[in-house]
Amino acid sequence: MKKTAVYPGSFDPVTNGHLDIIKRACAIFDTLTVAVLANRNKRPLFSVEERVEMLKKSLKGNKKVRVDSFDGLLTNYLRTKKATVIIRGLRAVSDLEYEFQMAHVNRLLYPKVETVFLMPSDNFVYLSATIVREASAMGGKLHQLVPSHVTEALRKKFKNLS
Amino acid sequence: MKKTAVYPGSFDPVTNGHLDIIKRACAIFDTLTVAVLANRNKRPLFSVEERVEMLKKSLKGNKKVRVDSFDGLLTNYLRTKKATVIIRGLRAVSDLEYEFQMAHVNRLLYPKVETVFLMPSDNFVYLSATIVREASAMGGKLHQLVPSHVTEALRKKFKNLS
Amino acid sequence: MKKTAVYPGSFDPVTNGHLDIIKRACAIFDTLTVAVLANRNKRPLFSVEERVEMLKKSLKGNKKVRVDSFDGLLTNYLRTKKATVIIRGLRAVSDLEYEFQMAHVNRLLYPKVETVFLMPSDNFVYLSATIVREASAMGGKLHQLVPSHVTEALRKKFKNLS
Amino acid sequence: MKKTAVYPGSFDPVTNGHLDIIKRACAIFDTLTVAVLANRNKRPLFSVEERVEMLKKSLKGNKKVRVDSFDGLLTNYLRTKKATVIIRGLRAVSDLEYEFQMAHVNRLLYPKVETVFLMPSDNFVYLSATIVREASAMGGKLHQLVPSHVTEALRKKFKNLS
Amino acid sequence: MKKTAVYPGSFDPVTNGHLDIIKRACAIFDTLTVAVLANRNKRPLFSVEERVEMLKKSLKGNKKVRVDSFDGLLTNYLRTKKATVIIRGLRAVSDLEYEFQMAHVNRLLYPKVETVFLMPSDNFVYLSATIVREASAMGGKLHQLVPSHVTEALRKKFKNLS
Amino acid sequence: MKKTAVYPGSFDPVTNGHLDIIKRACAIFDTLTVAVLANRNKRPLFSVEERVEMLKKSLKGNKKVRVDSFDGLLTNYLRTKKATVIIRGLRAVSDLEYEFQMAHVNRLLYPKVETVFLMPSDNFVYLSATIVREASAMGGKLHQLVPSHVTEALRKKFKNLS
Repeated sequence: MKKTAVYPGSFDPVTNGHLDIIKRACAIFDTLTVAVLANRNKRPLFSVEERVEMLKKSLKGNKKVRVDSFDGLLTNYLRTKKATVIIRGLRAVSDLEYEFQMAHVNRLLYPKVETVFLMPSDNFVYLSATIVREASAMGGKLHQLVPSHVTEALRKKFKNLS
Repeated sequence: MKKTAVYPGSFDPVTNGHLDIIKRACAIFDTLTVAVLANRNKRPLFSVEERVEMLKKSLKGNKKVRVDSFDGLLTNYLRTKKATVIIRGLRAVSDLEYEFQMAHVNRLLYPKVETVFLMPSDNFVYLSATIVREASAMGGKLHQLVPSHVTEALRKKFKNLS
Repeated sequence: MKKTAVYPGSFDPVTNGHLDIIKRACAIFDTLTVAVLANRNKRPLFSVEERVEMLKKSLKGNKKVRVDSFDGLLTNYLRTKKATVIIRGLRAVSDLEYEFQMAHVNRLLYPKVETVFLMPSDNFVYLSATIVREASAMGGKLHQLVPSHVTEALRKKFKNLS
Repeated sequence: MKKTAVYPGSFDPVTNGHLDIIKRACAIFDTLTVAVLANRNKRPLFSVEERVEMLKKSLKGNKKVRVDSFDGLLTNYLRTKKATVIIRGLRAVSDLEYEFQMAHVNRLLYPKVETVFLMPSDNFVYLSATIVREASAMGGKLHQLVPSHVTEALRKKFKNLS
Repeated sequence: MKKTAVYPGSFDPVTNGHLDIIKRACAIFDTLTVAVLANRNKRPLFSVEERVEMLKKSLKGNKKVRVDSFDGLLTNYLRTKKATVIIRGLRAVSDLEYEFQMAHVNRLLYPKVETVFLMPSDNFVYLSATIVREASAMGGKLHQLVPSHVTEALRKKFKNLS
Repeated sequence: MKKTAVYPGSFDPVTNGHLDIIKRACAIFDTLTVAVLANRNKRPLFSVEERVEMLKKSLKGNKKVRVDSFDGLLTNYLRTKKATVIIRGLRAVSDLEYEFQMAHVNRLLYPKVETVFLMPSDNFVYLSATIVREASAMGGKLHQLVPSHVTEALRKKFKNLS
């Protein structure tokens, strides 16, 4: 029996922390779907298409992973994909609480579903996409935190915005 | 001497977690006023009148409780009601910090006032009105988390919004 | 109907933080029993008799409070006293977790029981009996943190120990 | 390729919280080894043989699980078993920190190893073996928290100790 | 060699908690620059000029401190000032996480930089500029939490807004 | 005016995390005294002389640092050294609370004293001397976490103990 896990998130943009979690999930599960939440009313910096594209570029050559997008309830998406395992990275205390609330609601909406929490490498313990966006908006270059093509995409995006 | 306690909140909408705290507060205090904060500039999902109505419906038959609403400083409301006890449910670490900040400010503004924290049943430890609204907005049904008439009100509300 | 609350603890020794919680509980409840847990196998610094005596000295003149001691399960003690309200002070994050575990077990053992958490004055937010004992053992005088007769008792105790 | 996961712990004694994590892990992995840490110098209440026995009794009929014991470094045990996945339940903030320290050390000692954190059911969010032992030592019966044969074993153990 | 430290923040408005941190930093460092982040797109209540003015008024006579403002990346500002020490006050758990994320990004952007965290007096442990603004907006007077000229400025600001 | 800072701790044994904090403190302060707490009644693994020796070996060539030891109250030690700055590394949430309690008591015992918290490199965010001792006791080699001469000292110590 093949186990598929789904790693949902905004990925706005994908960071090296996300890629670290993906690598770890791939070592455990047979296949992994990275599912980009469209999240249109939260006004993401990158469109869902751009975010999917950046993930695909970053994951090129990894045959266990496919990249997809979804809108609405995660549990509805999981049902259509017949997946029951959610992957989430866990960094810190405030993460924990929101993640547990979400995991609990997902259990109520779809009792078969299980959320699996993985710990990122210590190099990414203080990393979030929010902080990458904030620093980039002011011209900060964070080579260590995102793939180089994402650095470039951020540079272009903020050039257009200013 | 009769002790009146006030349970303030947004109740947008009332959840089974709120009702659990109300039941617990009623076992301790002679009378309880559930006070809905109008909170107009935070753009609540339900109007203050709708929120009061949903609470009244949920608490029908409970003779110790009355439902009211207020705007502005909680401590001003407490003074007019000659109440000195605030009830708050405490779920989690991030709650604790905001709750303590609020309790401290309320003490400075009205030194006689005391905030009493109660622990919800473990069934509601991951429940918040925010998560109920978010799940409902995407069509998720959370029978276990809110009274059935609130499920219905959420369904109608999001139908109108879309 | 008179409501009696019970404030259980080790009180090894009583600190100004405990006295602050007692004062706050007295403003809410008709009567308060401060219940010293004998806790013999944890090797307290002061005997249960000494701890009861220090509390009585500190609370002299307060007619709402009585000081008592107990051994074994708190819920058994509460049943014999026909009390259903437990008072606990809540200082910090790590407190919260242990306190919630205890409150939950007490609920399972005695479903009628409710734990009421109060917030100490900000002056006592970093205070614990453990830190008072540790500092005193090395000759540190903490006038601001314990009643003067407790300072004296600590001085004597550590003189005898050395 | 079959994935074996190892769920290590003291299990002193096994609680319904542990059994809940085991059930969840079995829904994700092909086989699961529950590995009891002998932990002799921490003076467990039950011997490693008793703890293994209680687990076996509790897991009778579950064909995906086997119960084992180990001493020394967990990573050495994992190497001998050719296992690379560790299962841990995650309850609370203070848990998180110790668990992350352990997971990190295990990564350093055995880079292939990955720790997978699962969230227990909300019914077990305040449950720990420590609190079960403490309550039982004083005669408290916690039917909801442990299997009935464990309740019985605790009763006998504390009768012998007194 | 003279060490200059920089204390960056929004100071919207300056509180007694900020002034407490400034006093503590002055006891450690030779000179201190309080650097007001313009933060225009976060819609501060007071303009950067008003915030600088309120700080200057509060710090009149303190010869070790100068007040300045900046926009964009803090690390760019530090480079131009040839400063390598950042001062931050640390109050609480949720603070810690955001502060550590920021300190880490600042390290990546400017490896020489070090963030020094100081603990405010216990009187300011529950104080934040946000809570001062919220209470003032509703007419609450917080004499103990801000200098008197800030109370006055808040009164005027909210009169104009209503 | 020269500023001396004191970095107190058990250093049982010194880890790369401690050395990282020392390096950071040296970039801020003119001189640094690393002060080993004798801590005899806590039964350290290494004697105070061994711990001082390991620190000296690790810090050879660093002219800003001296290594010393003390017993009893830290604030008494600081008074005799005419030092008013304490350095502490801050890793995590549970750290924060104990550290703040200690910093507060030290302020009460010696009001001039200020505790300066520094953030370790992300590589040491999950590192503690306790976990190094525990892993070493079971034969785990942690090259990345301690200097090589400490690895050797640990190996010898546990050989003698077994």
